[in-house]
Amino acid sequence: MRILVTNDDGIDSPGIAMLVRSMREIGDVVVVAPDRQPSAVGHALTVSSPLRATPFHRDGEMFGWAINGTPADCVKLAVSTLLDHRPDIVVSGINHGSNTSVNAIYSGTVSAATEGTLMGIPSMAVSHVSFDHTANLTLAGDVARRVASRLLDLNLPTGTLLNVNVPHVSAEDFKGLRITRQGHSVWKDHYERRRDPQGREYFWLTGEFVSVNEVDDADDIAVANGWASITPIHYELTNFDAYNRLLHSDLVK
Amino acid sequence: MRILVTNDDGIDSPGIAMLVRSMREIGDVVVVAPDRQPSAVGHALTVSSPLRATPFHRDGEMFGWAINGTPADCVKLAVSTLLDHRPDIVVSGINHGSNTSVNAIYSGTVSAATEGTLMGIPSMAVSHVSFDHTANLTLAGDVARRVASRLLDLNLPTGTLLNVNVPHVSAEDFKGLRITRQGHSVWKDHYERRRDPQGREYFWLTGEFVSVNEVDDADDIAVANGWASITPIHYELTNFDAYNRLLHSDLVK
Repeated sequence: MRILVTNDDGIDSPGIAMLVRSMREIGDVVVVAPDRQPSAVGHALTVSSPLRATPFHRDGEMFGWAINGTPADCVKLAVSTLLDHRPDIVVSGINHGSNTSVNAIYSGTVSAATEGTLMGIPSMAVSHVSFDHTANLTLAGDVARRVASRLLDLNLPTGTLLNVNVPHVSAEDFKGLRITRQGHSVWKDHYERRRDPQGREYFWLTGEFVSVNEVDDADDIAVANGWASITPIHYELTNFDAYNRLLHSDLVK
Repeated sequence: MRILVTNDDGIDSPGIAMLVRSMREIGDVVVVAPDRQPSAVGHALTVSSPLRATPFHRDGEMFGWAINGTPADCVKLAVSTLLDHRPDIVVSGINHGSNTSVNAIYSGTVSAATEGTLMGIPSMAVSHVSFDHTANLTLAGDVARRVASRLLDLNLPTGTLLNVNVPHVSAEDFKGLRITRQGHSVWKDHYERRRDPQGREYFWLTGEFVSVNEVDDADDIAVANGWASITPIHYELTNFDAYNRLLHSDLVK
């Protein structure tokens, strides 16, 4: 199995190193990942500047290609141009931090898997629910391998990818894999006003994640309860209920 | 009606000037928009650098606030911090170029309306299907006003916004408004390899939009046929069919 690995945190992050170790147990791995942390880039593409691909070494060995772009750029450039062979699957991660609920919309990790899906390749995103770059990622690596090894024979529908989130718990406290749906928790944002040394105002984004009390198969609730959540997500954005209602409204009469 | 206007092409674009003119006919307008063209930024947020808000003048008058950030940043910062009053609606555009089909996923214009929706404010995105910044936008301005004036009483479901695309046709050839669904047309990408004066390789993204032969209420087909398409889109990303099938698969047994 040919596996394209990418991420959002950058090619030098501990998360992608763990993912590569675990993917090498089940296939041939090629790494094409951003050269720095883009962070909350959403499904960004670089269209107004050119991309470069630079060899990146780790422990004295060629590890992969570092790209001066976003996660979606990496997948597009790799599949269309850099790789000799089309990958069988795309795996993005392991992200340092959760991509449950509304976070999936802002996530570069998820957008890389989406780009793979748009190119017709079974794809998944893996995130570990801790921003601590020194956290133990062994469990997340195991979960990534278990799911990735099944990605081809699951026969996901066209345009659908798996968004996997792994809890920050010990092996004993881990409950197992669980199929979930995207939760509805949101960020309550505010901006901190500060003044620079010249007296000019600027704003820092800050906020808190507001958990919405939901059924226990929402991804963020499952993860909080010790499960690894697996949410099948797709990019069919039409709200068909609203579509049918609007068809009969006077807006278009 | 209090109307927050933003866009993706930048606060100095002809598209936002036309949108402001047309929104002023139906409400009180505040403009908070990016200070430059981000382009294909997806649902990006600026988290690792601070934002600044600078007054922007047009024809000698205060036009709005220019932000060194993305369209989603503009909406978040405006609603949470800059504005004295919460807007009743958010209108993003007029984008120079189509946001039908898969383009909605990459679109900063749509992401601004999504951010408004996430904050609980009825929102819409408006795009004109021509990249020509000198194109006549009168029709697009009229369509934007017609739809925006109805945005509150349409009572869209929570989390649902309107993605409006206006054809590049004369008033005589315009067919009217049409409720549509997101089309399935995609980009077939490739990267052009070049060498810089130092002999180092770099890559430019290029590609063609591949129209998928669909029913005529797909947004891109409707627009090609002279209609202004109105697609209700939402960010419920779960594929519930796949969810139900996976629940009964052996992946989680």
